[in-house]
Amino acid sequence: MKIIVSGFEPFGGDKTNSSWEAVKLLPDSLEGAEVVKVQLPVSFRKVKDLIPLILEEHKPTLLLLTGQASGISSLHVERVAINVMDARIADNDNYKPEDEPIYPGAPAAYFATIPVKRAVESIRAAGVPAAVSNSAGTFVCNAAMYTALHYVESVKMGTLVGFVHVPASPLQALQGNIPSMAPGLAARGIEACIKACIQYQRTITGDL
Amino acid sequence: MKIIVSGFEPFGGDKTNSSWEAVKLLPDSLEGAEVVKVQLPVSFRKVKDLIPLILEEHKPTLLLLTGQASGISSLHVERVAINVMDARIADNDNYKPEDEPIYPGAPAAYFATIPVKRAVESIRAAGVPAAVSNSAGTFVCNAAMYTALHYVESVKMGTLVGFVHVPASPLQALQGNIPSMAPGLAARGIEACIKACIQYQRTITGDL
Amino acid sequence: MKIIVSGFEPFGGDKTNSSWEAVKLLPDSLEGAEVVKVQLPVSFRKVKDLIPLILEEHKPTLLLLTGQASGISSLHVERVAINVMDARIADNDNYKPEDEPIYPGAPAAYFATIPVKRAVESIRAAGVPAAVSNSAGTFVCNAAMYTALHYVESVKMGTLVGFVHVPASPLQALQGNIPSMAPGLAARGIEACIKACIQYQRTITGDL
Amino acid sequence: MKIIVSGFEPFGGDKTNSSWEAVKLLPDSLEGAEVVKVQLPVSFRKVKDLIPLILEEHKPTLLLLTGQASGISSLHVERVAINVMDARIADNDNYKPEDEPIYPGAPAAYFATIPVKRAVESIRAAGVPAAVSNSAGTFVCNAAMYTALHYVESVKMGTLVGFVHVPASPLQALQGNIPSMAPGLAARGIEACIKACIQYQRTITGDL
Repeated sequence: MKIIVSGFEPFGGDKTNSSWEAVKLLPDSLEGAEVVKVQLPVSFRKVKDLIPLILEEHKPTLLLLTGQASGISSLHVERVAINVMDARIADNDNYKPEDEPIYPGAPAAYFATIPVKRAVESIRAAGVPAAVSNSAGTFVCNAAMYTALHYVESVKMGTLVGFVHVPASPLQALQGNIPSMAPGLAARGIEACIKACIQYQRTITGDL
Repeated sequence: MKIIVSGFEPFGGDKTNSSWEAVKLLPDSLEGAEVVKVQLPVSFRKVKDLIPLILEEHKPTLLLLTGQASGISSLHVERVAINVMDARIADNDNYKPEDEPIYPGAPAAYFATIPVKRAVESIRAAGVPAAVSNSAGTFVCNAAMYTALHYVESVKMGTLVGFVHVPASPLQALQGNIPSMAPGLAARGIEACIKACIQYQRTITGDL
Repeated sequence: MKIIVSGFEPFGGDKTNSSWEAVKLLPDSLEGAEVVKVQLPVSFRKVKDLIPLILEEHKPTLLLLTGQASGISSLHVERVAINVMDARIADNDNYKPEDEPIYPGAPAAYFATIPVKRAVESIRAAGVPAAVSNSAGTFVCNAAMYTALHYVESVKMGTLVGFVHVPASPLQALQGNIPSMAPGLAARGIEACIKACIQYQRTITGDL
Repeated sequence: MKIIVSGFEPFGGDKTNSSWEAVKLLPDSLEGAEVVKVQLPVSFRKVKDLIPLILEEHKPTLLLLTGQASGISSLHVERVAINVMDARIADNDNYKPEDEPIYPGAPAAYFATIPVKRAVESIRAAGVPAAVSNSAGTFVCNAAMYTALHYVESVKMGTLVGFVHVPASPLQALQGNIPSMAPGLAARGIEACIKACIQYQRTITGDL
C-alpha cells in the first residue's frame, strides 16, 4: 500500500510553508503503508499538470494533500473543493486568475473521498486541535484538491483524496497576532488523519 | 541567584492549566540561577496570602508569574497590573468579586519591573510567538501580579516581578475554535523570558 | 418584473433573526420591479417543500435568499451551495441531520447565478461592508440556497438565485463580543444587491 | 450643567474618525445639560496642552472622551488609563514615542471616574452593543484619558472623566474583514452613556 502526502512550497513572500514543515516530519511508513512525501509548487498550472502524473505514477491508496492557511487555529479537514480559481494574490508563476473555472464544464464541486468526520475525530484523539471546514478557498490549495478529485473520478481510480489545511507555523506568527501550530504537532495530526484513512480503506475493502 | 516561576492550578472546570503545563517543563537551573517552580491556587484570597510568603522565604532575584488566557494566540508579557478584582466566574474558593480593590487605598496600578519589550524580543528570538499586553485582566492572574508588585514596592525588595499569559494548550483547544500553543513551545518562550530578565538584572547591577 | 426576497424566522433560542429584521425594512418596489418579502421557516424539510412552491407561484426574475450568520462582520454574498445537511444544532422542527445529502444523487454543488462580485461591489458602493463568501455552511441556509438552485436548474427556469448572509443584529450582540450590523444598514446593502442583480438581468436579456 | 464630549480627528491615513462621526450626531443638550462637542487632534503633545485648557474654560460636570479602535465590535467603556506612551504608528505630529511616561513621576494609572459598569448597562439598555475594557491602549486615546484624569485629580476638580472607544465605521470597514458600527448607533450609545453619568452625578451630589 502506498500513500502520497503533499505539502506546498513557500509563497506570498514567506520563506517556509507550514504544510511542508509538517509533512517533512512524517515517517516513511505508517501501518505497513509506504509514505511518499511530495512538495507541490504554488502554481495553478503546474498543480494541474503534476497531480495526474503523481496519481498515475504511484497509483496510491490515499492522496492526502496539505496546505497552509494563515489565520486558522487548528487542522482543517476540508469537505469540498469547488471549480473556481479566484486569487487575491498572484501564484508563484505570477498568475492571478479571477473567477475562472479550473476545468470549464466540469462539475461545480467534488466532496473529499476520505472520511472527513472520522479524520477529525482521529486527529483530536491524537491530542491535536482539528475541525471540519466547508471551504478550501479559491487559491491553489482548492485547485489541487479539485484536480485530484476530478482526475480520480474521471479515470475511475480507487484512490482516496483528501485535503488538510495547516495553521501558520510559530516562526510565521512570531508577532503574536495570528494563531499558530508547531510543525511537530501538525505532523502528529496529519499522521492520525492518514491512519484514519487507512483504517477506513481497509474497512471498505474488507481488508481488515 | 534564585528564580521563582509560578503557574496556576486548573480552574473553570478544566483538568489542566496551560501555564502549569508549561512551567513544569522548565529546567531546574538557568544560566547559573536556581529555578524554583510553584503552582499557585486560583483563589484571590490565597494568592494574596501566599505571594508575600514566597517572596520572604526565597528572596528571589526574579518572580515570574504565568497564567492561562484562553483565546490569545501568543505569549503575552504583561505591562501593568491594576488594583481591581472583577470576576466573570467564581474562583476556586467560590469567590466572585465585582469591582473591588485588591488593596483598598493602594495605587491604581503597578508596572511590571521586568523589561517587557526585551522579554518579548527574546521570546521571539527563541522562535516563540509573543506580544506585549496592556491588560492582565481583572481575575486572579492580575491580582497575583498586583500583589507581588505591591509587596515588593512596599517592603523595598529588589526582586524583579513580571507576568506572562499563556494560550490554551492543544488539549484544551481540541475543537479547533480557539488558538493554542504546545506546552513545550510555551516553556521555551518562558525560558527565553527568564534569560532576558537575568541578563537585564546583571546589567542593572553591573554584575556582568 | 417580480423579485422575491426571503429572510428566516428566529432559531436557536433567539427572539429575532437579523435577516428578517433587515428584509422587512425593504421597499415594496425597486427600479420598477415588485419586491415580495417572504419569511422562511428554519426547517430543512419545510424549506425543501416551500421554495419550489414559491418559485412556481411567482416565477420571479430574482430569488434573493438571506439568512443570519452570527460572528460575521459584513454582508456575505455566497458563491456556492453544497449538497450536504450537517447540523450543529437541531432546526425548528427538531431535525438534526449529520452529513446527509439534501438531494441524494444530485450534484455536489451549485454556484449562485447572481453576479456575486458585482453584487459585493454594489453593496460596498452603497456604504455597506460586504465580502464574497465561499461557504454558506451546512445548515438550513445552505439547504435553502441549494434547493432553489437545484430546482431552477432542474426545471430550466430563468430565475436568478443568490444568497446573502447577514451579521447578528445589535440587539443580538449587546454583550459586545460578536460583530453586528444595524438592520437599516443591512437592508441598504440588500437593496444594493438587488439593484445589481436587476441591472445584470437587464444586461443579459438586452432589456436596457 | 455643562458636558464636554470629544472625538478625534482622522489619523493613520483615514479620511474620517468613527468617534467624531458619532459625536457630531449628538444633540446640543441632554437632560437639561449643555453638550459641547470638541474634536481633538491625534497628537500626544497637543492633547496634553488642550485638555487642561478645555477643563479650565468649561469646568464641565462631565468630560467624556471618545476615540476610534479599529477591530472592536462594540462600544468599549474604558476602566483605566496608564502613564505610558508607546506608539505603533506616528501621531499626526509625526511623534512616535516608545515606552515613555506621559507625566514622569506621576501615578502608573488612574481609574475612570464615571460609573463604568452602569454606563455599559445603560448603553445596552439603549440597544447598543457595549462592554467594559481594561485597556485604552498606549496611543493618544489613552494619553488623553490619562491627562484628563491626572489634571482633575491634581487640581481637585469635581469633573467626571470617562472614555468610550468606538468601532470602525461601516465606511472604514467596507472590505468586510473588521467589525463596524454605524455612526447613528454609536451616537445613541454615547448618549446613553452620558445620561448614565448625569444620573450618577445627580445621585452623588444629592441633586435628584
